[in-house]
Amino acid sequence: MANKYVYFFSKDFTEGKKEMKDLLGGKGANLAEMSGLKLPIPPGFTITTEVCDLYYKNNKSYPQGLEQEAAANLERLEKLMGKKLGAKDDPLLVSVRSGAAASMPGMMDTILNLGLNDQSVTGLVQKSGNSRFAYDSYRRFIQMFGDVVLEIDKNKFEEILHAQKLAKKIEKDVDLDVDDLKTIVLKYKELVKKETGAEFPQDPKDQLWKAIDAVFGSWNNARAIKYRELYKITGLKGTAVNIQSMVFGNLGETSGTGVAFSRNPSTGENKYYGEYLMNAQGEDVVAGIRTPLPVAELEKQEPGIYKQLIDIKNILEHHYADMQDMEFTIENGKLFILQTRNGKRTGFASVKVAVDMMHEGLFTKQEAIMRVKPEELEQLLHPNIDPRENYTSLAKGLPASPGAAVGKIVFTAEKAEEWAASGEKVVLLRKETSPEDIGGMDKAQGILTATGGMTSHAAVVARGMGKCCVAGCGDLVIKPGNTCEIAGKAFKEGDTITLNGTTGEVIAGALKLITPEISGNFEEFMKWVDEERPIKVRTNADTPKDSEVARKFGAEGIGLCRTEHMFFQGDRIDAVREMILADDKAGREKALAKILPMQKEDFIGIFEAMDGLPVTIRYLDPPLHEFIPHTDKELQELAKAANIPFGKLKAKAESLAEFNPMLGHRGCRLAVTFPEIAVMQTEAVLQAALTVKKKGVKVLPEIMIPLTGTEKEFIYLKDIIMRTAEDIFKRENDRVDFLVGTMIEIPRACLVADKIAETAQFFSFGTNDLTQMTFGYSRDDAGTFLPEYVKKGILPVDPFQVLDREGVGQLIDMGIQRGRKTRPDLKVGICGEHGGEPSSVEFCYHVGMNYVSCSPYRVPIARLAAAQAKIKKERK
Amino acid sequence: MANKYVYFFSKDFTEGKKEMKDLLGGKGANLAEMSGLKLPIPPGFTITTEVCDLYYKNNKSYPQGLEQEAAANLERLEKLMGKKLGAKDDPLLVSVRSGAAASMPGMMDTILNLGLNDQSVTGLVQKSGNSRFAYDSYRRFIQMFGDVVLEIDKNKFEEILHAQKLAKKIEKDVDLDVDDLKTIVLKYKELVKKETGAEFPQDPKDQLWKAIDAVFGSWNNARAIKYRELYKITGLKGTAVNIQSMVFGNLGETSGTGVAFSRNPSTGENKYYGEYLMNAQGEDVVAGIRTPLPVAELEKQEPGIYKQLIDIKNILEHHYADMQDMEFTIENGKLFILQTRNGKRTGFASVKVAVDMMHEGLFTKQEAIMRVKPEELEQLLHPNIDPRENYTSLAKGLPASPGAAVGKIVFTAEKAEEWAASGEKVVLLRKETSPEDIGGMDKAQGILTATGGMTSHAAVVARGMGKCCVAGCGDLVIKPGNTCEIAGKAFKEGDTITLNGTTGEVIAGALKLITPEISGNFEEFMKWVDEERPIKVRTNADTPKDSEVARKFGAEGIGLCRTEHMFFQGDRIDAVREMILADDKAGREKALAKILPMQKEDFIGIFEAMDGLPVTIRYLDPPLHEFIPHTDKELQELAKAANIPFGKLKAKAESLAEFNPMLGHRGCRLAVTFPEIAVMQTEAVLQAALTVKKKGVKVLPEIMIPLTGTEKEFIYLKDIIMRTAEDIFKRENDRVDFLVGTMIEIPRACLVADKIAETAQFFSFGTNDLTQMTFGYSRDDAGTFLPEYVKKGILPVDPFQVLDREGVGQLIDMGIQRGRKTRPDLKVGICGEHGGEPSSVEFCYHVGMNYVSCSPYRVPIARLAAAQAKIKKERK
Repeated sequence: MANKYVYFFSKDFTEGKKEMKDLLGGKGANLAEMSGLKLPIPPGFTITTEVCDLYYKNNKSYPQGLEQEAAANLERLEKLMGKKLGAKDDPLLVSVRSGAAASMPGMMDTILNLGLNDQSVTGLVQKSGNSRFAYDSYRRFIQMFGDVVLEIDKNKFEEILHAQKLAKKIEKDVDLDVDDLKTIVLKYKELVKKETGAEFPQDPKDQLWKAIDAVFGSWNNARAIKYRELYKITGLKGTAVNIQSMVFGNLGETSGTGVAFSRNPSTGENKYYGEYLMNAQGEDVVAGIRTPLPVAELEKQEPGIYKQLIDIKNILEHHYADMQDMEFTIENGKLFILQTRNGKRTGFASVKVAVDMMHEGLFTKQEAIMRVKPEELEQLLHPNIDPRENYTSLAKGLPASPGAAVGKIVFTAEKAEEWAASGEKVVLLRKETSPEDIGGMDKAQGILTATGGMTSHAAVVARGMGKCCVAGCGDLVIKPGNTCEIAGKAFKEGDTITLNGTTGEVIAGALKLITPEISGNFEEFMKWVDEERPIKVRTNADTPKDSEVARKFGAEGIGLCRTEHMFFQGDRIDAVREMILADDKAGREKALAKILPMQKEDFIGIFEAMDGLPVTIRYLDPPLHEFIPHTDKELQELAKAANIPFGKLKAKAESLAEFNPMLGHRGCRLAVTFPEIAVMQTEAVLQAALTVKKKGVKVLPEIMIPLTGTEKEFIYLKDIIMRTAEDIFKRENDRVDFLVGTMIEIPRACLVADKIAETAQFFSFGTNDLTQMTFGYSRDDAGTFLPEYVKKGILPVDPFQVLDREGVGQLIDMGIQRGRKTRPDLKVGICGEHGGEPSSVEFCYHVGMNYVSCSPYRVPIARLAAAQAKIKKERK
Repeated sequence: MANKYVYFFSKDFTEGKKEMKDLLGGKGANLAEMSGLKLPIPPGFTITTEVCDLYYKNNKSYPQGLEQEAAANLERLEKLMGKKLGAKDDPLLVSVRSGAAASMPGMMDTILNLGLNDQSVTGLVQKSGNSRFAYDSYRRFIQMFGDVVLEIDKNKFEEILHAQKLAKKIEKDVDLDVDDLKTIVLKYKELVKKETGAEFPQDPKDQLWKAIDAVFGSWNNARAIKYRELYKITGLKGTAVNIQSMVFGNLGETSGTGVAFSRNPSTGENKYYGEYLMNAQGEDVVAGIRTPLPVAELEKQEPGIYKQLIDIKNILEHHYADMQDMEFTIENGKLFILQTRNGKRTGFASVKVAVDMMHEGLFTKQEAIMRVKPEELEQLLHPNIDPRENYTSLAKGLPASPGAAVGKIVFTAEKAEEWAASGEKVVLLRKETSPEDIGGMDKAQGILTATGGMTSHAAVVARGMGKCCVAGCGDLVIKPGNTCEIAGKAFKEGDTITLNGTTGEVIAGALKLITPEISGNFEEFMKWVDEERPIKVRTNADTPKDSEVARKFGAEGIGLCRTEHMFFQGDRIDAVREMILADDKAGREKALAKILPMQKEDFIGIFEAMDGLPVTIRYLDPPLHEFIPHTDKELQELAKAANIPFGKLKAKAESLAEFNPMLGHRGCRLAVTFPEIAVMQTEAVLQAALTVKKKGVKVLPEIMIPLTGTEKEFIYLKDIIMRTAEDIFKRENDRVDFLVGTMIEIPRACLVADKIAETAQFFSFGTNDLTQMTFGYSRDDAGTFLPEYVKKGILPVDPFQVLDREGVGQLIDMGIQRGRKTRPDLKVGICGEHGGEPSSVEFCYHVGMNYVSCSPYRVPIARLAAAQAKIKKERK
C-alpha cells in the first residue's frame, strides 16, 4: 500500500504492531500491539509520523488522501463505538495525542475530551447522568484547546476559574458546582472570542483537524527542539498523532485513573508499583495537585480490578520482556489500559531488572547486558551521603531519584544554568518542575520539589538524568524574593543544602558524600559483562588514590598517568619554575634533581596501587608557560618569593608565551630541546620501579612519549631513555622490564605509523588532540561555533564528546593498520576522553584496539560499552 | 676487478673518468678525466672512497691488498716521473689531498711537499738551484705535517717563525733568508720531538702513510661533520685520497699559479676570467696577501701559456658542457692544470651561460632548462648590492625576502609613509610587523625586524610585495625615542643602512645597488621553460598592482586573492569594526553594506588586471579579533574615535580573544555563524564581475571557501552563495559563469575529499595551515623548537619552507585522488607558500595538480621548477 497514512487499532481490527514504532510512534505502536493482544484498549487510530514529515516538507500542508483516510477511520471508530463524534445524544469524545518513536514526555501537545460543544455536552450529561462531570469536561476541553490550539495564554483561563472560586468563597476546583462550571464555560467562550475574534469552534471535525494541526505543529516547538538536542534524539521523521476514544476516570467513585510500573523504577524491585486516584483524570495524577495513593491500596478498594491489572502487567512484561510503564483508567468499574511503554528507570533499577529478568528466564545473559545503557551505570557510581555522617533531616519528600546532592539553593532554572556555568554546585528548588526547566535541571546537582509524586515531571526527568531528586516535599514553601521555608526554617538563594534522593531527606548544610561499591546485582552484572568484553579497560589516573578507585571499578591498568599534574603540587612548582627559569642545561639539571625524588615517590605510590597491572606514564606534555603565572601581579609575587628580579621573570614569561600553545613547544618537543627532562623522568620511573620490585610488587612500567609526529623524534627520545635506563640498571645492579611507546595524537603520526612502530612498542591514541588537529578546532575556543554547527546539523554531535568516525576515526584506523604492518603485535589503546564514551568505545573495538582507558568513574561504563559492542557485532 | 682500491692517472695511463665521482671523489674523477683528455696534469693516483668506508667500518684499518696496490702505483709514478719519492738527488715530491664526491672546500686535510726530509731537501736544492725555495718547502712541509698528521698545535710553529722574524727584525716571511729557514727547520724538528717524543719522520713511505691516515681521519673531524650537516650532504661513502706529483709555481719569475673561470661567474659573459700571481703557490692567490693580476694580463706576460690556457678552457668547457672553475700552475714556463670543476655563479650568469651554451650547441633546450636552479632566478627580479662593493656586515638576520635596500631608518609605518611621500628612501625597522603596518611596508625600500621567522608577517608580506626583508635579526634592539642598537652600535631615525635580503645581512651606511636588466636571455630562457612546463602557474595577489606585476612575470591567473587584506585598508577598518561590534545580524548587515561598495571596487580593479584569466577569491578567513586592537591604550583610542563605550569595546575584545586562534573561530566558520558576511562578499564579487563584463572584460571568478573540514559546511555555504547569486542575476538581469570551490587545508578535508568534491568545483591546497595541523606545529611558535629539530636531523628541513612529502604530501595525494573519484575533472591547485618553492612545485606536478599559485615574485621560479619537474620525470 503506497500511501497509507492512518492505522486503526481495536480489539477486533488492528493494523499496526510494536515493531512499527518509527511509523506509528511509540505510543501508537504499543496501542496497536496491546489491541492485538486483546487487552482492554479504548479503540482509535494513528496518523503516521510520515505525515508529520510530509507536513513540514510541504510547507505545513497534508498529503493528498489523508483527509479521506482519516474520515474513513473516524467513521469506523464511530461505528465500533456506536457513537458519533460530537453528537448531541451520546457523543463520541476522543483524545488527540502526540507520540514519536522516541519518548519525549510532556514535550508535545495533548487534547482531551475533543468532540464536546454546546450541544454534545448535553448529550454527555444525559448519558453519564452527571452534569457536573459533563460541564467540567467541557470546561477542561475549552481550556486545553484554547491553550494548545488557539494559543491563548493559559493564565487567562486560570484567572476566570480563580475568580469564580473567589466569588463562591471556595478553594478547590472540586467544590465548584454545575452552575459554576456553566458560568465558567460561558466566560471561557467569551475569552476565546475576545482573544481570537471568533467563536469557540463548535464543529467537531473542525475541532479535530485543528487539534491534529496543533499536535504536528508541536513537534517543532522550542521545548521539543531543546529536548531533542539535550537527549541527542536525531533521525526521527516526526510525531504521530493518536486519536483515541475517551474513557473517563472522573465519572464518580467507581472511576479512577493511575500510572504504574511493573517493577519499582527506583530500585528495580519486582513489585507492582504505582499510584492512582479515584474519580480523577490522568492529569490529576501527573500534575501532583492531589496526592495519589500507592497502587497496592487498589487491592483493598477494587480487588477485581487490581487482579486484572496484575494479570495485564504480567502479560505485558512477558510480551515485551521488559519493565512496563502503564497508564490505566477505570470507567464505572471497567478497566482500560491507555498506554504502555518500556519504563524509564534509575541505573540501579536498570541493572536489577536486567539481572532479575535473566534469572526469571525472560532473556539471556547477552540480552541482559544489552538492556542496560552504559550511561545508566553512572548512577551506580554516584555519590551518596557518607554513612558515618550523623545528621538530622529537616524535612522529607519522596525519594524520587537516588543518590545524594550538595549545593547552593537556586529557585529558577536560568539561575541554575548561570551559576553552574561559573562553577557553582547548585540544587534547584521548585514548587514543581515543568518542561521549560530541563536546562537548569541538567546543570543542578539535585532537584527538590514541593509538590508532585514519584511519577511527576521532576521525578521522571531526574531519574532519566541519573540525578538525585526529592519530590513532593510538602514542607517546602517557595516564597517571593528568592527565599523559601523548609519545615518553617528560612533559606535564601545561595544557602547550602544536602538532598538524599534515596531516602527523600532534605538536610541543611553540606554533608560529606561517598561513592558506592560494586556489589550484589551490579557485581553479578559486571561479571557477565566481563565474560563478553573483548578488550581491556584501563584508567587515566595520576595519583595512588585515583588508581585505587579505578582498580575497584575494574580498571586493568593505567592507560594514562599524566606527570605534569605532579609538577604543580605543593612546593614542587617552585623547583619546576626554577628549572624553567634556568639559563642553561646545568641550571635545569640542578632544578630537576630536586623534582626527581618527589616524582619517584609518586610513581612508587602508583606502582604499589597497580601491583601486577601495567602503568603507562606519559612524559611531560604541557607548554612550560603553563607553570608560570600570567598576570603582572602574580609575577611580582613570584619574583619576590623566588628572589628573582621581576624584569627577568617577566621577560621569561613573555618569551614562553605562545600564539597557539596547543600547537607550540610542548609534548616530546620539550624533551627534544631539553633532553634532561626525559632523563630525570626516566630516573624517577625506573628508580621507583626498582624500589617497589624489592618490596615484591609486580611492576610493569610503560613509558609513553607524547605528541610524536615523526619517527626520528621517537628514535631520538627512546635512545635517551634506553641509555638512561642502562645507566640506572648498572648503578643499581638490578633491572625491570619496561616498554617505550608513544601517544598518537598528531595527524602526521597516523600517516607514518608504520615507521614509528618500527621503534615504538605501543600506541595510545590521544583523541582529544587528534580531534583538535584533524578538524582544526581548538577545544578551548570551539564554544563560539561548535554549538551552532550542531544546531545547524553540520555536525551530528560535538566531536570532542563522541569520536568522529568518518574523519578522526579514519586516521585512527590507518594508524593501527600501518603500525601493525611493521609490528604485528603492536599494543594499541586510547587515552583521550572518548575512551569512556560508549559509542567511541564501540569504535575502538571495531578498529582492533587492545584497550581503552578512561577516568576512574567511567571504567564500568567502558567495560559495558565494550561488551555491548561485541554483542552488537555478533548479532549483525 | 673485485678489489681495486687505487686508480692511476697520467697522460698515458688513466684508469678513472669523470663519471666515477662516487668512487674517486670529485677531484680525483676530474683529474682522471683531464688526464684522459691528454691535458697537462701532474700525474698521480687516487685511493678510492670505498677504502675510506672500509677504514671506518674496520675500526680504522685498511683492507687487505691496499698497501701493495698503493706501492705499485707509487712505483709506476716514480718510473713515470723518473724520480724516487724522497730520494736525495732529484726527489719526487707529492701532494696528498682529500676529495669527496661533493665539494667541501677547506673542510678536510691537505699536505704538500711530502717526500722532503733532511737528505732530499738537498736534492731539491741541487735540482731547483734555489736553496731558499727548497728549505722554505721543507719548512712548510714540517709545519703542515706537524699540524695535520702529528696534531701539534699550529700556533707553536707560528711562534717559532715569529721569533725568528723578530730576531732578524723583519716583517714578512719572504724576507727570511736560507739560513733563517734552516734555523726554523731545526727548531720545528725540535718542537716535533718535544711534542711527540719522536723524531720528525724521515722515511718518505712512513710520511706518506701517515698522511693518508690523516686525510681519511679528517673525513670525520668536527668541521667536516658540521659542514655536511649544514649543507645537508648525506649518503657519501667517504673521501678519496689523491696522491699527485708536486709542481711548483714559486720556482721563480717563469713560474706562477692562478685560478680562472671559463666565463664570467658574475655576468655569464663568455670571456675567460680569473687571476694569477707569478712566483707564488696556490695558497697565496686564495689567501689575498699579494694582489693577483687579472688573467688577461697573462696574454702579454706569457702569450704561449695564455693561448694554451684558452685552448684547455675550450676543451674542458666543451667536454663538461659547463662553465669551468680551474686551478693552474706554471712551473718554469710549463703549464699544469691542477683541478677543474663546474664553476659556481650568480643567477644572472647561470641564465646567460645556459642560453649561450644552448646556442653554441653544447646542449639542448631541455638541458639548458635543467642548468639553472630555480632559486637563482630570484636575483634576476630584485635590486641587489653591486658585486663590486666590498663591505662588512654589522649583523645578520634571516634572509626573509631577497634583494637589497638602502634607506633611512624609520621606526613606524606612519613615518615611513610620511617620509616616503616627501621623496625619502626609507627602511622600516620594527620589533615585528602587524597588519596595520602594511601601508608603511609598502612605501619602505626594505624591512628589518627583530623577531619573527621566515614565515612571519613581515617576511610573508615583503615577499608578496617583492620587497627586501631581513627578519628575526636578534642583534636589533629597538629603543625608546626613535633609536635602536644594531649589534651594540647605536642608530637613530634618519641614519642610513643597507639590507641584503638575499643573505640576511645588515650593513651600516649606503652601498651601491644595481637593478638587473632582464635581458633578452632571460626572456628567451623563460620561453623555453614554458614550452616544457606541464602545469599552470598562478599568483597570490590582493591588489590590481600586484596582479599586474605577477602577470608581467607570467602568472596565468590568481590562485589566491585574500579578501581580508582589503578589510584593513583606510577607513574600511572602521566599517569592519562596526560589523564586529554589532549586537545582532541587522547591525552587522548595516556595517557590511558600507564595506560592500569598497570591496566591489577592489574586485573590479583585479578583474580588469586579470582580463581573460581566472581569479580565485577566498572569503574572509582570519579570526575577527585580528581586526580589533589589543592594548587598552589602542582600545581607548578606538572607543573615542568610534564613539563606543570603552567597557563595551573591551568586553567585546575579550570575548573574541582565543587560546589558539589558528584553530579558532575563523575561515568558513565565520560564514557559517554569520552568513551575512558570505552574502556581502558574494554581492561584491558578482556585482564587480557584472560591471567589468559590461566593459568587455572577460571575467572568470572562482569563489573559494576557506578552512572547510566537512562536506556539510561546504554545502551550507555554497547554498547561500548560489541563492545570493541568483538574486543578483535576477536583479541585474545579466549573469556570469563562476565556480565555487574550497581550500583544502584541514587534515579532515583530505580524508573526506570525495564527499566535499561532490559539491566543490575546485580544490586549492592551503599547505601553510595543512602543514600546521598535520604536524601540530604553530608556525608562529615553532621558532622555539623547529631549528633544533633540523639541527638534530629529526626533520630534514623546515616543513613550512619545503613541503613534507611523507606526511603532508600523503594527505594531499589522498585528497586529490579521492576528490577526483567523485569529480574526475576536479581542478586542483596549491596556494600555500610552498607553491613557489621548487621541490614542492615538483611534488605538486607529481600528484597531478593543475596549477600552483605563489607570490608574484616567485612566479618565474615556479614556472622553471614545473618545467624541470617534467624533464626530470621524463629522464627517469
